Formats: sequence, structure tokens, C-alpha cells
Amino acid sequence: MASIVDPTAPNLALAAQAAILAQPVTEERRMADAIRVLAMDAVEKAKSGHPGMPMGMADAATVLFTKFLKYDAADPRWADRDRFVLSAGHGSMLLYSLLHLTGHAGMEMEVLQRFRQLHSPAAGHPEFGEHPAIETTTGPLGQGVCNAVGMALAERMLAARFGKSLVDHRTWAICSDGDLQEGISHEALALAGHLGLSKLTLLWDDNHISIDGDTALSFSEDVLKRFQAYGWAVKRVDGHDHAQLTAAMAAATRSSKPTIIACRTIIGFAAPKKAGTAGSHGAPLGGDEIAAAKSALGWNAEPFTVPEGLKARWEEAGRRSAGTRRSWLKRLAKHPMRADFERAMAGKLPDNWNEALTALRAQHAAEKPKIATRVASQRALGALVPAIPEMVGGSADLTGSNNTDVKGIPAVRPGDFAGRYIHWGVREHGMASAMNGMALHGGVIPYSGTFLVFADYLRPALRLAALMHQRVIHVLTHDSIGLGEDGPTHQPVETLASLRAIPNLHVFRPADAMETAECWDMAVRRADGPSVLALSRQNLPALRDDAGENRCARGAYVLAEAEGARDVTLIATGSEVSLAIEARAQLAEAGIKAAVVSMPCWELFALQDVGYQEQVLGTAPRIGIEAALSFGWDRWLGANSAFVGMTGFGASAPADQLYAHFGITPAAVVAAARKLLS
Amino acid sequence: MASIVDPTAPNLALAAQAAILAQPVTEERRMADAIRVLAMDAVEKAKSGHPGMPMGMADAATVLFTKFLKYDAADPRWADRDRFVLSAGHGSMLLYSLLHLTGHAGMEMEVLQRFRQLHSPAAGHPEFGEHPAIETTTGPLGQGVCNAVGMALAERMLAARFGKSLVDHRTWAICSDGDLQEGISHEALALAGHLGLSKLTLLWDDNHISIDGDTALSFSEDVLKRFQAYGWAVKRVDGHDHAQLTAAMAAATRSSKPTIIACRTIIGFAAPKKAGTAGSHGAPLGGDEIAAAKSALGWNAEPFTVPEGLKARWEEAGRRSAGTRRSWLKRLAKHPMRADFERAMAGKLPDNWNEALTALRAQHAAEKPKIATRVASQRALGALVPAIPEMVGGSADLTGSNNTDVKGIPAVRPGDFAGRYIHWGVREHGMASAMNGMALHGGVIPYSGTFLVFADYLRPALRLAALMHQRVIHVLTHDSIGLGEDGPTHQPVETLASLRAIPNLHVFRPADAMETAECWDMAVRRADGPSVLALSRQNLPALRDDAGENRCARGAYVLAEAEGARDVTLIATGSEVSLAIEARAQLAEAGIKAAVVSMPCWELFALQDVGYQEQVLGTAPRIGIEAALSFGWDRWLGANSAFVGMTGFGASAPADQLYAHFGITPAAVVAAARKLLS
Repeated sequence: MASIVDPTAPNLALAAQAAILAQPVTEERRMADAIRVLAMDAVEKAKSGHPGMPMGMADAATVLFTKFLKYDAADPRWADRDRFVLSAGHGSMLLYSLLHLTGHAGMEMEVLQRFRQLHSPAAGHPEFGEHPAIETTTGPLGQGVCNAVGMALAERMLAARFGKSLVDHRTWAICSDGDLQEGISHEALALAGHLGLSKLTLLWDDNHISIDGDTALSFSEDVLKRFQAYGWAVKRVDGHDHAQLTAAMAAATRSSKPTIIACRTIIGFAAPKKAGTAGSHGAPLGGDEIAAAKSALGWNAEPFTVPEGLKARWEEAGRRSAGTRRSWLKRLAKHPMRADFERAMAGKLPDNWNEALTALRAQHAAEKPKIATRVASQRALGALVPAIPEMVGGSADLTGSNNTDVKGIPAVRPGDFAGRYIHWGVREHGMASAMNGMALHGGVIPYSGTFLVFADYLRPALRLAALMHQRVIHVLTHDSIGLGEDGPTHQPVETLASLRAIPNLHVFRPADAMETAECWDMAVRRADGPSVLALSRQNLPALRDDAGENRCARGAYVLAEAEGARDVTLIATGSEVSLAIEARAQLAEAGIKAAVVSMPCWELFALQDVGYQEQVLGTAPRIGIEAALSFGWDRWLGANSAFVGMTGFGASAPADQLYAHFGITPAAVVAAARKLLS
Repeated sequence: MASIVDPTAPNLALAAQAAILAQPVTEERRMADAIRVLAMDAVEKAKSGHPGMPMGMADAATVLFTKFLKYDAADPRWADRDRFVLSAGHGSMLLYSLLHLTGHAGMEMEVLQRFRQLHSPAAGHPEFGEHPAIETTTGPLGQGVCNAVGMALAERMLAARFGKSLVDHRTWAICSDGDLQEGISHEALALAGHLGLSKLTLLWDDNHISIDGDTALSFSEDVLKRFQAYGWAVKRVDGHDHAQLTAAMAAATRSSKPTIIACRTIIGFAAPKKAGTAGSHGAPLGGDEIAAAKSALGWNAEPFTVPEGLKARWEEAGRRSAGTRRSWLKRLAKHPMRADFERAMAGKLPDNWNEALTALRAQHAAEKPKIATRVASQRALGALVPAIPEMVGGSADLTGSNNTDVKGIPAVRPGDFAGRYIHWGVREHGMASAMNGMALHGGVIPYSGTFLVFADYLRPALRLAALMHQRVIHVLTHDSIGLGEDGPTHQPVETLASLRAIPNLHVFRPADAMETAECWDMAVRRADGPSVLALSRQNLPALRDDAGENRCARGAYVLAEAEGARDVTLIATGSEVSLAIEARAQLAEAGIKAAVVSMPCWELFALQDVGYQEQVLGTAPRIGIEAALSFGWDRWLGANSAFVGMTGFGASAPADQLYAHFGITPAAVVAAARKLLS
């Protein structure tokens, strides 16, 4: 194979390619060639894209889509279909070609001709929502394989709930060297081995080429040995040999472990000069190279055309599970759990899902518990999780700190998927990405736990949840210097701002037990995007005794109006709202009339009409109070304002001393108000 | 060993512990016990902390610090010391106890008694800068082991430059299960195996306990097999058996590969009830349990006291390399490269380091090249890297896209560390964390490359660079929708805001080739914190023909004043500055007098005096222009303002079409100005 490590070395891939091309052309090879030429043509027309991977993996994809994958092009959202994830999302033309060839509506040839153009479903990378057969958005490496782990896990959990007659499908993913170099792959794939997700199969495009050149520049690990260490079954095949590919995939379907199949391929297969080199990875091949490649393949059709017989054979493959689907539909029609199954897969909540939560809110109003919001969250979960069988919790090894477990709800274990709690291990990123896969699979509503500061560890997956409009909920506790002694590595100061900056993410920071229940209500309701709950480690006084309207639903509200016309408006979130209330009392003593606004969710408040916003924010000078940096707060504070919060990283000390040390106190608010009004 | 998976199972650790405690007490055991009791006492007094790990790893640490580690307590910053990293930073009392016992100034018993108190160097987690013997800040799991990889790599590179007589030391790290579950560990440790960093040794605290309980809840991989797959040497020892530990560490010092030693330990060793359970991990043991543990150890001294003879033996260990250090100092005094070595280790730049850069700026002023800022960055590197031998570049497999390589500068290869470029592979997080280790080691100034959107993948390490005030520079290209067809997964929209939110990080977004050179100048000068350069994929017109003062040094400046009194001020960064210049011309035609402010670095501008800030920003209404979200911009725009930029995620299409589609055009700026002034 090409050695780019020594650029003067001969490109050995070309000899291997010539040997393959010298063999008689089978129908299967011809079917794979259709993928290759469509990839070449579309990238060339778009003047950008990645032809090398589709050309290299065309054979493996052909074997998968013609012999193993359970799907029906007539209904790409069929609930019991196999899931297929193109983790190496840059090779998007592989997926689009397959969808076109197998006869999926919405991926006609005109769509391929608009590859990478504005509003085309054939976007640069596969984008969830652009076409119903795109199972997930991929491109950021490592995410797809971890999504696949989540899908395979969701399948097992739903099979445990609804039985094998409704849920019995596999998950397949094609991944690249880059996917396996990314750390996230270690996290979720080790867990997949631990849990024994035997219906998960990875097809690794082992092409020895990365963007910088030969993978030997940076990548010399024994990948299959690593997977064996994780408890996976491993196979190694010639990725251009259909018989070997067929045998390996068949073995995977019989394995009691998840399987990785190393498909040794030639990137850009058929390109006479660029095959086996990084030159075929991420740029059009050019007209001459394409012409020569087609000639080498014996392909005579015009660009963007596939001979009729070949297209018919592909469309037949696209119907290969049509009968299976019909049988499944019959079983579903008669199934006693049909209504529940359909409701869960549609992402609809059960009737009366928040009855217990409403009762809990009434109890909070009556009892006014002084508890940490992480504990209040656990109480909310105690009301929600039993009522919503789709909810699946977990923590990245901080269960006792995140308070994410619910009494009586067992954990998932290797080979036993009846539980609804997942011990993710210290694997934040893999957790979040697998949760995306679970949500995308449908039928489950996953929530996680870790410390707020470690949102950084899972951020790429959270961004994708927002981009894909997926309902995943992250319970992020220990949300400020209020965590105390663990110090600046564990104290978020910029984390709230960095999360609020992500489009379509709702960041909730409730102030007490009541608000925590209300924010949980909003997060669970929200079907079109992810939510974060930022929760305190420390106890907080109860601030509310009304349990009627969900006051957090509008993002911010006047918790305590001024006694008379406002001199100043104090706007606070989470643990600092009670501090604002104290400051309000001290200001009153000084004759300054202050209102307190609790603002648990900026994003919801931003959605309110201007009238409501103006009513809440008022026209008096404003003081923002949050044990975090002011970054982003100017939006709500305006010109004549002050901010009481952090100005840099935290420190290690007991929490109350830290609040005093950093000057986040009622006295500091009073001083700021006096200065503002002077 | 305890099975917390089944909470009713007997705690088998207690029997194993009893067997060990029944053996005759050796001096080595007694030395380890001193660590154990100090950890118990300090955590108890602080009422918080993690006693279990120090108690479990006390034996391994004792063997390391008495027989292997090259250090001299009299000079903890000695350049050729072995580096010791406590990756499992929660076990900070292990480190503080060792520093105290070995006689390090600044870690006296009074300091231990103030463990986890405000201003104490003995913070909750080890904090770089709090004590000179703390090599790095740890706590966020996985970071320490990757820092250690960077330190080991820096050692090899400096040895290649200065020779073995000045640079010849090892790197040791103690890590936990959590460190090895984190994905980042996969990235950097696989690379360490690839590069053959044989002077790196990991001591893995294999205690089978994580916070949620037995590691078997989530962690069943064959860790040593995984490391063998990476090309590491592996050993497994009884972590309480000093002879086994000694033999394994001795073997590590002879190995041609990096080595991991699995130290099978009992967490909380000596605690009669809590040993071998998660209960000893992260909370004080309690007075009764401590008393019983001391009794089991045969330890009679008062809290926070160590018998004199034992302390003397430990202090002797603290001087074990004093002679080696004296010999080294003699070699240094006579060494022909002494001045360069001392300068490099002090982080000082060579004389005339920016001469070539100054010449490049003059050339840019004369030639006004229309190039992408990523290309301008490569030209700046061409001027800087040859002049500054400490600069070490690299990319996470995007060299040709990031333009981070420099002609004539070879790459590091397995066993050959004379190069100054690193092919990191698709390993952003491991890269950034190893770079932190390189900077902490001293003698190198690392810079990276990846796409800006993938800053999310390396963010936890970047946060630590900021917290530790380390000079690492990240070259983050493809900084907006201007990257075009790759689509929303690759288009940062919130990334600039999320980076600007990190304290002590400087985020530069230059507008043309001149500004790129100026921003590089500032990033290299900056010795006390990390910098990011956000660079365009697309070509940008040259906007400057002056090459005198570095105008980016003040963060923002008036690039084009209004013709007369300002009607409006356009504030833009990076690729949108040229767009603002175009808008200014169009506004002039409409009789509206606009100034254009280029604001390449918010953080530097925020440091300027108010007078300068007011002069730049002016009093006219302001329009912010940036192909990103407005989050954070209100700070600079004030009340009467508008923003032209993104409002959500991007899309896949050619770049010019995307700018038009999202309304980031001179026409949109003109329209915003008209509306603002109407």
C-alpha cells in the first residue's frame, strides 16, 4: 500500500488495484461500481467533496445493502428497520448513492446533481432531517460510531420492554481510521463491549490513509487487539472481496459479541493515479482521472446515469425486507402493546405523565424544603421516571453526586436490558453521543449526569443534539463555586455562558425545589431539542409557595416585586436568587425599592413577546447576579447596570468562604445598587 | 475484592488487607503508612477530600519516591528532574504528603493542616503554581496522563536539541481507572506507543472501585491488552508488595517502550470497614474508622505528626538525587549551549525573534496579498519557526488545511525527535492536553492545528491551559460559514463566543495577512496564557498598507475613520472586516458617514484604558458584524445598536451563497444602518 511516510516510495495500491480490476466483472462488482461513479460525478460537479471513501467502501456497502441490512426503501422510518450509520460522514456520497440506487424517494438523480448545494438534501455531510433515511448527522469524527452504540442499546432496551416480535433489529456503522483515533470511540465502544451489544457491527474502512498521508504517520496501534480487549469479536477481510465480506457479516450476525470487521480497502479504488493516496480523500478527482477510472472499471454510461438493468437490481435490493416489514406490521396491528409502542416511538408522553410532578410541586409549596437543587432534581425524577417508561437515566460515574438514580429503577447490566439506568463509567463524551443515538433511535428519552464543568468533555455531542433537535437531557450538578473545596478545576465559571451560546439548547438553572420541578417539566416536554439542568451541590432555601402556573415556562419572571416603583431590578439565576432576595430586604431597609427577577432559562425568556420581557425587566437600573462570569449578561442588563459574579477562575475552599472571597453576597449587591443609583 | 455490583456480597478486600497487615512491618511499609495517616488526618480536618486513593497507592508512591524518581527537594524546578504527574488529582493528599515528607519547603505540616482551605497551597486538587513541585493541575480525569505524554515528548525533543548531558529524565504518572476510561487517554497514550516514548511510565491504581461502586459496573476491558495494542510494555503487580513494585519500575526504566504497571491495590488500605469500597473514595473516613485504621497499622503518633526517625528517612529520600543534580549543574556551567538552554527553559524568546516577521509585515504592506488568513498564518510561521527553535507545530491530521507546516521543518517520527512538527492524528483532545504537558515541561512553545469548530473536542485541555497560564497556541482554521460546503457540522457559529468566555484565553481573529502576522506576534509574545488564532479558509483582501506599529496589540483599532463626524461605527472581526469596508463605501454614497473598527482580540481590547476604548468605539450607534452568533457582542455594542451575523446553525453550500443566504453582506449592513438611524 502507498507509503506517504516516504513520499518517494512507490504507490503499491496501484498494483493491488490492477490485480482486482483484472478479474472478471461480477454483477456485485458492477453494483459497487455504480456507487463509485456516482460519487466521482457528484463530487466533480459540486467541485468539492470526498470521493475516496465511497470508492473504497463501495464493495462493503454493496454487500451490506444487498444481503444483510433490513430495510425497505418504501418506508425508511419503519420502526424495526436495521439502523445504518455512516460514521465517516465525509463519505456522504456513499450514503446518497445507496439511497438513490435502492429507490428511496427524495434522493432522485437530480438531488445527487445538487450535491453540496443550498437546500439540497444531499448536503456536504449527512444531516439528520434532510432525508428520512439519514439516521444521524455525521462528520465530526467518532460521533457516528457512538451514536450507533446508543442505537444498539436502545434496541436492546425496547426489545426488553416490548418483546422481540416488535423490536429485533441490528445496527451497522461504517467508520474510518479517524473515527477510531478519536477518544470518544474508546469510551462508547468499550462500553458496548462491556454490555455485550452483540447486534452492533462496525465496518472499519481500513485504508491506511489519513489526510496528512499514510496512517503510519501517527497510527500504529493494533486496532483489532484493542477491540478484543474491549470484548468485541474481530474479523479482517479484503474489503474488495465480496465473498470475504459476506462471510464476515454473516459471522457478525451470529456473534454473541459486538463485531468489528476490518475491511482492508484501497481509498479511491479505480482511480488510476490517486487510488491509495490522500489525494483521493477530500477533493474532486478531476475530469481526466475520472475518465480513466471509468475506463478501468469498464463503465461506459454518461455521468449521472446508471444502466437500467443495474438500477433495477439495486431497487430490488431496496425492497429486500418489504415482506419482513409487512409481517411486522401485521404483528404490530395485533400486538397488545401497540398503542404504547407507537406512542413511545412517536416521542409522545403518556397521558397524565406529570400528575406526580404536579403533586410534588404542591408538596414543595406546602413544605418549602431547603435542599440542594440536585436533590430536588432527584425528587422530580422520582415523580417523572415511574410515570414515563421511556425515560432512561444514567451518570458518568457520579450517581451519588448527581442524584440521577431513582429508587426501584434497576440498572442495565451486561446481557440484561430490562433496567432503565446506565452506569456509563467515566465517559462523558461517549455517554452524550450514545444518548444522541438513543434519542435518534426513538422510543427512549435519555437523561445523563455529570458535573457542570465537565460539560466541556461532552460538548461536541451536545452541539449535535442541538443541531439534530434531539430530546436529550443533561443533569449537570455542582454548578458553581458553591461546590467548594474541589477548587477551580471543578468550578464552572464560563460554562453557563458557553452552553447558552449553543443554538437550540435550553439551559435551565433553577433557584429552589419548586423551580427545579418546573424546569424538569419543561425539559421533558421539549421534544425538539436538548436541555441542560444546572444544579447546585449546596442547599438552597425555598423561595416559592405557589404551585399553580409553571412560572419557569416563560424563562424569567418577577419573583418579588418592589414595594412601590422600582429603584433597581435584581436579576439572578439558580443559587443566587435567594441571595438577591436577601439583598432586596437589605435594600428595603436602606429605602431602596428592588424587584427580584428569577431567570432560570434565558432561551425561553428570549422567546417571549417584547411586552412581557419589558414588564419583567422593567426600566429601572439592573443588577445581574450569578456565581459565574458576566459573559453574555449585557444582553439583559443594558447600559445602566452592574453585575455581581465571578471575574475569573475559582479557588479551593469551603463554599461560604468562596462566596465571601469573590464578593458574591447580599452586601455586594447592596453596594452595587448604591453605586448605580448614586 | 469487594463486589459492589452485588451489595450483599462480602467485602473480600478486608481479608486481603488483614493478610497484608499480619506481615511484619518493614521500614518501607512504615514510610508508606506515613502517607496514609497524613491523608486520613488532613481529609478529616478539612471535612472533605479523598483519602482512599492515597491510602491505596502509598506503597507504590513510596517505592517511586525512594528508589526511582530523580528529584531534589532543595530545587523542585531543577530542569533535568524527572516529572511526576498525579493524574488522579483527587488523591492530592498523596502528593502533598510526599512533598511534606521529603522536605519540600512550602509544604510544611501547617500547610497540610490547611488542606482545602482558602489560599492554601494544598488545594483540593493539585494546582500548578501553588507549589513549585506541583508539575501540573489535575482533577479533570485523563488530563494528567496526557500531560505526561507531552512532558515525555518534550524531554525527547529537548534531548535531541541539547544532548543527553543536559536533558535525560523520565516521566512518571499515577493514574486511576477513571483516567483510563476517559477517551482522551486513548488519544495520547496510543500516540505515546506510536512514538515509542520509552521514558514514560504509568502507575495505574487498579483498585476495582469507582464512585458508582465496583468498576465491574461499567468497566470490563482488558486494560493491559489495550495498552499492548498501543505498543506499550505492560506489567501487573500487587500494589502493596514493595518488591514487586520495585522490580516492575526497574523493568520500566530498561524498556524500549512506554510502560504501564497495573498496581492491584485496596482503596482506603488500612480502614477496617471502608477499605475496598467506594465509601473510602471521596469523603472523610470519620474519627472511629481512622482510629481503628491507625491501630491496625500500629501507628501511635498524634494526628499530623510523623515520628522523627521516619521523617528523617523520608527527607533522605528527598535528597536522593542531590549529587546527580550537582553533577548536572557542573555540566551545565561548562556546556556550550548553556545560554540557549537556560533561555529556552525560562520561556524567553531569542534576540531578534521577530525580525523576519517584521520583514514579512513590510512585505504584506507593499504587496497587499489577497490570501486566506490560514495561508497568511503559514507565512507568519515561516518567519517565526526558523527564528524560534522552541516552536513546535502540529495538526490533528489537517496539516494541508490548517497550513501549520513550515518548509524545511521535519516531523517527529518514532524514535527520531529531532523534528519540530507533530502528526497528532485525529486526536484533538490528546493533542491539546499533551501540548499543555510540553509547555509545562518547558523549553518548547507548542502550536496546533485543527478546524475552529473542533475546539469543542479539545476544550477541557484548553481550559486547563488558561487556568495554568501556559503558552500554547491553537491554530483553528475554517472559522465560519466561509468554509462552505462542509456544512453546519463544520461551521462554527457559537465557537468564538464559547472561547471568548474562557478566562485568560486570548482569541484572535485577524482580518487579513497583516493582521495575521500581528496576531501571531502577540500570541508568541504572550508567556502567561494560551492563544487561539481563528483563521479563514477563504481568501480575504488586504486592508492595511502600514507596517509600523502592531495595531492588533490593543485588541481593536479604527481601521477606517468616518469622513467627518461618525453617523455609525461598524465593528467587525476577521473575514467580515473587509465586508464592513465595503459597507462603509456604500454608506458613504448614501451620505452616511461610517467608521470601521477592526477588533481582532476582545480580550486585549478589554485591557485598554477607558479613554482608548471610547475613542475606538465612539458615541455613534454601532453595528457589530461577524459571521457568528451575537452572543457576547452586547458588551461592545451598547443600547442603540444592531448586529449582522448568524442566528443559528449554518448550512451546506458554496461560501458566497451562504453569506447571501444568511444575510451577511454589505447590503445588510447598509440596511441595518439605515434602520438604526431612521
